[in-house]
Amino acid sequence: MIKIAVDAMGGDYAPLEIVLGAIRAVRDFGVHVVLVGDKDQIEKILKNENEENNELIEIHHASQVIGMDEHPGLAFRKKKDASISVGAKLVRSGECKVLVAPGSTGAAVTAGLLGIGRIPGIERPAILTPLPNEKGEQTFLIDSGASAQPKKETYLQNALLGYVYAKYVANIENPKIGLLNIGEESVKGSPEVTAANKLLSEQKTIPFMGNVEGRYVMTGEYDVVVTDGFTGNVVLKFGEGAGHLFSALIKESVKKGGLRAKIGGWLLKPALKEHLVKRMDYSEYGGALLLGIRGGLIICHGSSKSWAIRNAIKLAKDVAKTDLHEIIAEALKKIEKNDETEC
Amino acid sequence: MIKIAVDAMGGDYAPLEIVLGAIRAVRDFGVHVVLVGDKDQIEKILKNENEENNELIEIHHASQVIGMDEHPGLAFRKKKDASISVGAKLVRSGECKVLVAPGSTGAAVTAGLLGIGRIPGIERPAILTPLPNEKGEQTFLIDSGASAQPKKETYLQNALLGYVYAKYVANIENPKIGLLNIGEESVKGSPEVTAANKLLSEQKTIPFMGNVEGRYVMTGEYDVVVTDGFTGNVVLKFGEGAGHLFSALIKESVKKGGLRAKIGGWLLKPALKEHLVKRMDYSEYGGALLLGIRGGLIICHGSSKSWAIRNAIKLAKDVAKTDLHEIIAEALKKIEKNDETEC
Repeated sequence: MIKIAVDAMGGDYAPLEIVLGAIRAVRDFGVHVVLVGDKDQIEKILKNENEENNELIEIHHASQVIGMDEHPGLAFRKKKDASISVGAKLVRSGECKVLVAPGSTGAAVTAGLLGIGRIPGIERPAILTPLPNEKGEQTFLIDSGASAQPKKETYLQNALLGYVYAKYVANIENPKIGLLNIGEESVKGSPEVTAANKLLSEQKTIPFMGNVEGRYVMTGEYDVVVTDGFTGNVVLKFGEGAGHLFSALIKESVKKGGLRAKIGGWLLKPALKEHLVKRMDYSEYGGALLLGIRGGLIICHGSSKSWAIRNAIKLAKDVAKTDLHEIIAEALKKIEKNDETEC
Repeated sequence: MIKIAVDAMGGDYAPLEIVLGAIRAVRDFGVHVVLVGDKDQIEKILKNENEENNELIEIHHASQVIGMDEHPGLAFRKKKDASISVGAKLVRSGECKVLVAPGSTGAAVTAGLLGIGRIPGIERPAILTPLPNEKGEQTFLIDSGASAQPKKETYLQNALLGYVYAKYVANIENPKIGLLNIGEESVKGSPEVTAANKLLSEQKTIPFMGNVEGRYVMTGEYDVVVTDGFTGNVVLKFGEGAGHLFSALIKESVKKGGLRAKIGGWLLKPALKEHLVKRMDYSEYGGALLLGIRGGLIICHGSSKSWAIRNAIKLAKDVAKTDLHEIIAEALKKIEKNDETEC
């Protein structure tokens, strides 16, 4: 049976919320989870929940933890028995198919890169983040922060990673791929992005629709939007900030609009929760994915509570179904030969 | 008396909405405007509005127009009598202090660069765009799209331009300047942005608060957020898209939430218009500014109607009050000497 490793010590609410989330995922999806971290603490939570004898929940002891404020690279090298390193080893050895890692993105990327290892031919792994779109579906932004040094080849690899994910995990038949840029014309943009457009236009292995402006990232016209980790991270976090500003302004409207607005706000609230807040809430999506490594890795927000962890493990189950890294390795060979056959 | 040049032929609704906006601005703020464009068309509109004898409204004939879909550089060189080129010349000659340019951003940047000319020492002009923030004020994003080729020195110049604008036009006593980056630590980011952080930290002429993550651009903690034109443009347009998605989801909540939500939405609507929609609406702000040139230039959205033009002319009046380019030229000298005295 496929096993999912979960770093039980990662994030602001570890280990309690992580373990509770794992229990919910096991109940809801029948997955087999391996909780990596302090055995005593994890056992205690399982006992409290009467889950200590659940055969689908394993504990794998790890004595150390990498904190949110530590330098990821240094900490990873120093703390050989950190829960996230041990979790990565379980994926590398093949015992687990996917690692769910709440907490520091930097630590997760390092664990993926050094602990699990790159797919041969992939220069830098990339983070794929699902965004809500106007069609009620998801648009995948890649790279949203793994590598801040963009080269034209990186964009090509990110496009390939995003394409394979959209097709084989998200089951989109003909994924539409666009390159994030400041104009639609192919000659627009920074020198790297202009060169990337040329490279993407010349290859025949994956379909490419051209440049996407920021305005159209979330309209649903594109399934995958390709960018570098610097731009992707800034955009993603700016979007988070915009969401915060919007909520603040809705609250202000209710507060300052008199009795009429107060009643209106009270009446509208449940619908806004259902149709707006939920769509914007990262905890519904589970997390982002590190792609380009020899196994699955799901990066969860540091403030993830049990519901977010449950959903991340559901996503891990979907990822585990496909041998994504093998498909990626095959696709890489095709793109090198500029092979037109579908990948 | 200070005169403001207005490209009456720019944007989707020219010349009618531009001329109507100018009339409103003259009525509301007592400014003197010079409408640049087709004399016959402009005269006709003024006559219809009974404003043909208004001494504060002048017409300066220009026989050509640069369209939204033309290549800005080529069109500018070819069409010597285009309204935007003639408007730029009026600023260059000193007859007008500021040019208000609705329509293509590319054409406006070209007109500023070639028609008005750079301030000596400024390598590339930059676009400053006001964003709404959570404190109910504005945060200025610079560069939001003038130059897509970032060098570390460009960030320093953008910081200086933003600082001078915030202090002398927006009248913020101690403007807080941050550098848009993917983390708060000074070593984070792309090579160019890391180098820019070092450069900004070492200079003593303008105050620098360090890196800002995307999430905190609109919290109001910073008055000026410095970035390159590629990132700035993508972020700005992504924010526009997020606003669109957000409105769509509010509408969906009202539609799908049953009778309760419909009544709630109807009751809340006026307050949302007043406190949310207005705050997000570019037409309330007037436009973005091209800084680093020897005169004022306000770039308005291509879809600007009379209200947006009226507000852009109001902003132009504020800009015209200060000799911004002279202050910038002085500040440039100070920053070259790493002078600690206030600029």
